[in-house]
Amino acid sequence: MNVEHYMKRALKLARRGSGKVSPNPLVGAVVVKDGRVLGEGFHRAYGEKHAETRAIESAIEPVAGADLYCTLEPCCFTGPEKHQPPCTDLIIRSGIRKVFIAMLDPNPKVRGKGVEILRQKGVEVSVGILADEARRLNEGFITYHTLGRPFVHLKIAQTLDGRIASKEGDSRWITDEHARRQVHQWRARYDAVLIGKNTVQVDDPELTVRFVEGRNPIRVVLDSTLSLPLDRKIFHPPDPEKTFIVTGPDFDLQKRKALETRGITVLSVSYDLEKGDELFRRLNLGEVLTALGDRGIRSILVEGGGALFTSFLKSTVYDRITFFIAPRVLGTGINTFGDLGFTKISQAIRLEQIRIRHICTQIQVEGYRPGFLKETEVGLVPGSETVPSRFQEISI
Amino acid sequence: MNVEHYMKRALKLARRGSGKVSPNPLVGAVVVKDGRVLGEGFHRAYGEKHAETRAIESAIEPVAGADLYCTLEPCCFTGPEKHQPPCTDLIIRSGIRKVFIAMLDPNPKVRGKGVEILRQKGVEVSVGILADEARRLNEGFITYHTLGRPFVHLKIAQTLDGRIASKEGDSRWITDEHARRQVHQWRARYDAVLIGKNTVQVDDPELTVRFVEGRNPIRVVLDSTLSLPLDRKIFHPPDPEKTFIVTGPDFDLQKRKALETRGITVLSVSYDLEKGDELFRRLNLGEVLTALGDRGIRSILVEGGGALFTSFLKSTVYDRITFFIAPRVLGTGINTFGDLGFTKISQAIRLEQIRIRHICTQIQVEGYRPGFLKETEVGLVPGSETVPSRFQEISI
Repeated sequence: MNVEHYMKRALKLARRGSGKVSPNPLVGAVVVKDGRVLGEGFHRAYGEKHAETRAIESAIEPVAGADLYCTLEPCCFTGPEKHQPPCTDLIIRSGIRKVFIAMLDPNPKVRGKGVEILRQKGVEVSVGILADEARRLNEGFITYHTLGRPFVHLKIAQTLDGRIASKEGDSRWITDEHARRQVHQWRARYDAVLIGKNTVQVDDPELTVRFVEGRNPIRVVLDSTLSLPLDRKIFHPPDPEKTFIVTGPDFDLQKRKALETRGITVLSVSYDLEKGDELFRRLNLGEVLTALGDRGIRSILVEGGGALFTSFLKSTVYDRITFFIAPRVLGTGINTFGDLGFTKISQAIRLEQIRIRHICTQIQVEGYRPGFLKETEVGLVPGSETVPSRFQEISI
Repeated sequence: MNVEHYMKRALKLARRGSGKVSPNPLVGAVVVKDGRVLGEGFHRAYGEKHAETRAIESAIEPVAGADLYCTLEPCCFTGPEKHQPPCTDLIIRSGIRKVFIAMLDPNPKVRGKGVEILRQKGVEVSVGILADEARRLNEGFITYHTLGRPFVHLKIAQTLDGRIASKEGDSRWITDEHARRQVHQWRARYDAVLIGKNTVQVDDPELTVRFVEGRNPIRVVLDSTLSLPLDRKIFHPPDPEKTFIVTGPDFDLQKRKALETRGITVLSVSYDLEKGDELFRRLNLGEVLTALGDRGIRSILVEGGGALFTSFLKSTVYDRITFFIAPRVLGTGINTFGDLGFTKISQAIRLEQIRIRHICTQIQVEGYRPGFLKETEVGLVPGSETVPSRFQEISI
């Protein structure tokens, strides 16, 4: 068995914490000695024991001289908001011979220091095995610690000719239940889903998880004037504490009170100033993300509509875009994106690390904002054997 | 070796006639006896010997008792415009034991009669092996004999958000040289390429074959008022006999003469009547296709622009659409399609037999007009073993 095999196992374990650990990262760990797995663990829920601790504690034999596989660099600090002791201490105390780490912890309180401490105490360390997979596992956590805001993933369901709805606003259903199932899987994993006011008005969605097992995400609605009617489904969820409305600075206090009485959270941010001094009642997305990040949200799935997608692209506070493209042609309708100010093809946004796959006859295309991968690169400590973490081009 | 192996070989041979045999079909043939290939042949050029004749004549041993593999039903008729004798005669005379045929000849003068004649003379016949591949080989020929017009293939290069050019008309280059190479391969194989007036004005294309080996196709420009300036590249090709301009009924005779003096062909068709009695100067595409079909054109690649794509979709005289999608986002620009009159998603055109592949980071998606496959189905003669010819769903 090679090192990748055990790291894959650790990654698989890590995923089992999906939807439960944020704002902590997903982490998995495996203890191996003489080709036998002695113990394994994953971070199960925020505030609970770390994966490394669980793996070591669950070992069926003494772990002295064993190898430890971790999907993320073991933590090495204590602090007032930290619930668990540093994993490096336990690793050293347990007599682990070598630690294989998929990627460094992007949290500046760790980022390489965990590796340093282990090496100082004579524990061998290798960093970089399956780093790409490890990165994909914790896009929210990594983005927050490198860019200081939640990870933003735009999810678009469109026709081949780039329409998200008909002229009359009809959008049900462009894609089929297989694509929608994937979206519900994301809802169960992402900290929050976010939509614009128009989408609430036209589609009246619930934004709950129904097609798969999993908890509901926090639902965020941007309503710059707090003017949405209260009869919308999103204001009557089974879990109102998970509905957030973000509005502008000059909202109706009565309306706010009505919402808060229902258990809904109302947040207020500034408007964006555009075209000189002319005031547009468009919320400043940077502030929206900061407000959500302050409430522990690390990953956001943006589900529409077109005006909101356009605003995210213009303000460049987005990270990944997934297009679900139905093999249909609509002709004139509502466009996926409005004006981005480009007059030449060479100005068009070139998404990076494109991945293409198909879901039945639908096409799923995804890519990252230009620069995202470089900006969120955590890097390697000197002396590590493997290449820096970088997503691989995945071909179909 | 199974029968598919030899039919694949025959299909491969057939393709070698690409760009040279129209309005005849591409045909390949292989003679096999006791597991050895005795002879093979393909239709090399219009008016020349048929594939079956070449295969039998090239045999290195007597073919009596051998099997013959043909990508198309052998012909069985003579006529004033037919250059070659019926292949069925030679097959019977040669003592061929069994004939494997990929698909029936859609030409009503043959369509099953070739098979009947062979069977009457004691030759065994099997129809349907690799029928899908055989159909794809001769889409122009099949469409002409089933729908009475050339096969029309729309080729679209667009961004992920469905734009074929920027607001200012810039479209160079949405896709890269790998996608353009595929387009040049098609140009070398299709009888004609067709573009609208706007594309000549904005892009000034040559529509020649440059990135691959092969002959230039006939270039067709739709210019409803014969108003394009004569300085465009398409009016100064190395082979002016291959440039056709199609215009409306009331064109400028002087302009026509100027074009014809250069060796360019000018065709005239009626306008479409739309919206009651209001006359739009839009050429009747059915008449355009009839005029081109009358001149021996069986397959047409339509390369743009958006107004022309929209007209083809509205008039439903198109058959296949290929989208080359660059992983880029442009925002507001020129849309691939204009208004098709649809107000609901359920009305959107559902392309059939979708195929998805990628060319580097570009996505190639193709499909057929709803109904096309059924309308052009040639069917099987009674007693044939295999299922009717139908394209398979090709997944990536």
